[in-house]
Amino acid sequence: MGRTSDAREKILKAAQSLIELRGYSALGVAEICKAAGVPKGSFYYFFETKELLALAVIDEHWAVQRVAWERIMRSDAQPLQRLRQLFEETEAGQRAGRKSCGTVSGCLFGNLSLELSNQTEPIRERLQQIFDRQVEMVDQVISEAQQQGDVAVVDSHEAARSVVAQLEGQVLFAKLYNNPQRLETLWSNCLALLDARVRPATADAH
Amino acid sequence: MGRTSDAREKILKAAQSLIELRGYSALGVAEICKAAGVPKGSFYYFFETKELLALAVIDEHWAVQRVAWERIMRSDAQPLQRLRQLFEETEAGQRAGRKSCGTVSGCLFGNLSLELSNQTEPIRERLQQIFDRQVEMVDQVISEAQQQGDVAVVDSHEAARSVVAQLEGQVLFAKLYNNPQRLETLWSNCLALLDARVRPATADAH
Repeated sequence: MGRTSDAREKILKAAQSLIELRGYSALGVAEICKAAGVPKGSFYYFFETKELLALAVIDEHWAVQRVAWERIMRSDAQPLQRLRQLFEETEAGQRAGRKSCGTVSGCLFGNLSLELSNQTEPIRERLQQIFDRQVEMVDQVISEAQQQGDVAVVDSHEAARSVVAQLEGQVLFAKLYNNPQRLETLWSNCLALLDARVRPATADAH
Repeated sequence: MGRTSDAREKILKAAQSLIELRGYSALGVAEICKAAGVPKGSFYYFFETKELLALAVIDEHWAVQRVAWERIMRSDAQPLQRLRQLFEETEAGQRAGRKSCGTVSGCLFGNLSLELSNQTEPIRERLQQIFDRQVEMVDQVISEAQQQGDVAVVDSHEAARSVVAQLEGQVLFAKLYNNPQRLETLWSNCLALLDARVRPATADAH
């Protein structure tokens, strides 16, 4: 059984790279199997449909990203500095991606939201759950910042949605212009959106 | 010749609807021709490749949207009120789209940026030009607002990019959650990003 579970991993890994590079609709099962180096029969043994594969790719990617987000968002750093850390790691991730494959691949969840949310309800629901969770994590940090008097914004949930929307919007431009530097403004954008008491000049020392 | 130019229009219209609903990669030429009610030969008479069709769809959509943006951004209204008008019309457009086809289709340019910018350079370049133009228009309005002392933000170009990124990010969520109401926060987001002197309470009367 060691070998079959290996095949599932290979399919998932190949599918994730291909989806990041070229989206979901453009891919065929044969191509995924070729990139994974597994026979087509294996694919249908593990994934009944291509949609189920996409859901597994999403879950796998979120399992990894959630751990990173939780590490950052629950650290001992000051609340706003945790958000800053999140932006810096996001930018570093996009830089690393461009270095390894030549192009900024953007956010897998954002990419699939725009490509697929109108087409498959299970994928839409899964992506909604992920973004809900991201917003919830950012909301908790903003609430802490509110309690400390670091930010003047009143509705922490709506503010969290706006911060995540800003992140997705800037990642879209980083991808379109193939330029991860676009993400450098996220920190000052975030301070502005939260009406932070600490503005960039003093907040720069972290 | 009246009939052939009619066929081109029909192909473009069908392609735009289909791309808005299902993206570019998922579509085949046969399906576009069927929806347009034109023979496949007509397609290749007007468009040598599917990529050239996508470019024509982008140009056609921008030709219409640019007129709307210019009308709003060059009106006699106060600069910040012009931005507000832009957000309100964007929200109204997404509401109308949902009413007519059941789902928020989002921004065609944002959708194609995430789906295709890594795959075809001509489409990436065209989309960059369009977003550059949008940012330039927003930049001009922000500069006017700066001159009047309405906003405290210093770098009008970077601020314009952030406002357009916020717009794209919130449109992404409006599409994912099939909820145009998500766009209601754009106005207060924009005031925050621009560090506007006039805040929502007073700015509400427009």
